[in-house]
Amino acid sequence: MEHQQIIFSNDIPGSLETVLKGLDFNKVVIITDVNAHQFAFPKIADSPVMKGIPCIVIKSGDTCKTIETATTVWKQLEAEGATRRTVVINMGGGVVTDLGGFAASVFKRGLRFINVPTTLLGAVDAAIGGKTGVNFNGLKNEIGVFNEACAVVVSTLFFDTLPPTELKSGYAEMLKHGLLSDRSYFANLLNHEILTDDREQLLGLLERSVIIKRDIVAADPHEQGLRRALNLGHTAGHAFESLAMKRMEPVPHGYAVAWGLVVELILSHMIYKFPSDILHMVAAFVRDNYGTFAITCDDYDTLIALMRHDKKSIGGEINCSLLADIGNVKLGTVVSSDDIKAALDIYRDLLQ
Amino acid sequence: MEHQQIIFSNDIPGSLETVLKGLDFNKVVIITDVNAHQFAFPKIADSPVMKGIPCIVIKSGDTCKTIETATTVWKQLEAEGATRRTVVINMGGGVVTDLGGFAASVFKRGLRFINVPTTLLGAVDAAIGGKTGVNFNGLKNEIGVFNEACAVVVSTLFFDTLPPTELKSGYAEMLKHGLLSDRSYFANLLNHEILTDDREQLLGLLERSVIIKRDIVAADPHEQGLRRALNLGHTAGHAFESLAMKRMEPVPHGYAVAWGLVVELILSHMIYKFPSDILHMVAAFVRDNYGTFAITCDDYDTLIALMRHDKKSIGGEINCSLLADIGNVKLGTVVSSDDIKAALDIYRDLLQ
Repeated sequence: MEHQQIIFSNDIPGSLETVLKGLDFNKVVIITDVNAHQFAFPKIADSPVMKGIPCIVIKSGDTCKTIETATTVWKQLEAEGATRRTVVINMGGGVVTDLGGFAASVFKRGLRFINVPTTLLGAVDAAIGGKTGVNFNGLKNEIGVFNEACAVVVSTLFFDTLPPTELKSGYAEMLKHGLLSDRSYFANLLNHEILTDDREQLLGLLERSVIIKRDIVAADPHEQGLRRALNLGHTAGHAFESLAMKRMEPVPHGYAVAWGLVVELILSHMIYKFPSDILHMVAAFVRDNYGTFAITCDDYDTLIALMRHDKKSIGGEINCSLLADIGNVKLGTVVSSDDIKAALDIYRDLLQ
Repeated sequence: MEHQQIIFSNDIPGSLETVLKGLDFNKVVIITDVNAHQFAFPKIADSPVMKGIPCIVIKSGDTCKTIETATTVWKQLEAEGATRRTVVINMGGGVVTDLGGFAASVFKRGLRFINVPTTLLGAVDAAIGGKTGVNFNGLKNEIGVFNEACAVVVSTLFFDTLPPTELKSGYAEMLKHGLLSDRSYFANLLNHEILTDDREQLLGLLERSVIIKRDIVAADPHEQGLRRALNLGHTAGHAFESLAMKRMEPVPHGYAVAWGLVVELILSHMIYKFPSDILHMVAAFVRDNYGTFAITCDDYDTLIALMRHDKKSIGGEINCSLLADIGNVKLGTVVSSDDIKAALDIYRDLLQ
């Protein structure tokens, strides 16, 4: 499969102009959300390229990533006279690129779309790789399609509008990409101060992270094999995220991934002898930047049940992507509940 | 692009068994509608292959081809424990294969599906070629995807359960396929008595018709060029269909296509010298089998306005696929309203 076109630039209007020049289209429509419209959009709105492009503004937040919101987008696309030759620009975080990508992909059996992620998490994760969708009936991303944006414009232009929590959340996915690639990039990630180091350094790390994800997706766009490597940290991470929801104390996705990475590196060490010095470095970085998600042994059964219900589980068995070393992925490892319990004990020792 | 797998057989269970043997799956779910469940399903339900396969039964009729119905299908797929490795069998007419194909294509970002058309129109048109979708906001097939069934099982097994109107409706699309291919097949079509000749003869004609459509779709799956040939008869046909709706006297889709074919062959004769002897043979066949759709010159402006709003129109111009001869397609011909008026005059002379 061809690589997705990704442009790294803080000149968003210029980049959009370049992309649009290569497309045969009759109209452009922006899909964005209330947050991005308020904080990010003003940074580019005055550019001549953006003049007169209609904006469809959806509500912010994962709870709005629904078929009902998609329905309102379709009605507005119709009101704007969108045809099959119309191009959609999704400008926002993961909710906008997921929902906007889905809405465009099924409108008149498919409009083309360009993603302009405005958050770090969006840039390193949601906007790249063609997974689109909405939540349905309490299940995340249950309805959607695999369909890549015809281009993604990655920038750090909007990052000063983001709360520190969001930057850290996105950085957890970068750590994951680092663990999937090589030691020197990973070392650079651990040495970076997320909130205080300069944005040029972050842009360099971000570019590398995006390329790692892009290459994995290109090798397996429909998640039948290698792409499952990107689930590293997410089996335990989703369980933490769901448990936090049950406790009515939701945590940011990336924080849950950071804690999940620690659990899954412990499992990797137990099962595949993943180097313990790296495990300890990651645990320290996570503790310093993300704190800890406090659990007791009374939570183990709930966490294990949540892992069994993960999309990736097959026939009720818990299935993880683990590592034998940095860059050495062991896909589809079946993990027993005893292993999980042992790993959660160590997690508590390391982080609590 | 590869050809879609199409099996011509009246042994549906045996064919499904063969297809399923080639797939890696964990579960099969049938999507059907009330009509097909009542009339068609009993013909195969006793076969051992079909035992224990759950049926999701939707309401019948084009007005039920909606996002709301898709929503009920998704909920039932979840209740049946469908996963990405589940295979859906869409068994019914065009509403079932369109909606079921869409519902499967977006559930968990894509389940595979097999189409088993139970109507002639479904077999020659909707079930083949990967157009899936639902109506939205008063617009036909506004939300959907291009995604081919992994196999289509075409049979005449269910045709004795169909009303004569449905058989004739499907036959109009076969006439269109004949006009797009060659004179000898087209002559066979005109010589066939739709309702009285034996089913073996129909199966032979049907196979040829399906192959013609399949080959056109394979050359242009996303309707960017050649596939628009399949719109022959449909620009005028859709206008007749919509006018009938406005009059609160709906007509079957295939009947509207038959009348639309006459109008567009007249335009073909006017613009490209399409042979007038064939035009007259078609007009006679249509008059004998489909009667006429009565219009006066007071309807012309309405019909022209409806044609301008067709999905295929670009910038308000009326765009037709016409013919210079049988098998000689002229895609994307822009037709003036004066041409349409002249053609409608001749249509009234020929059919009324």
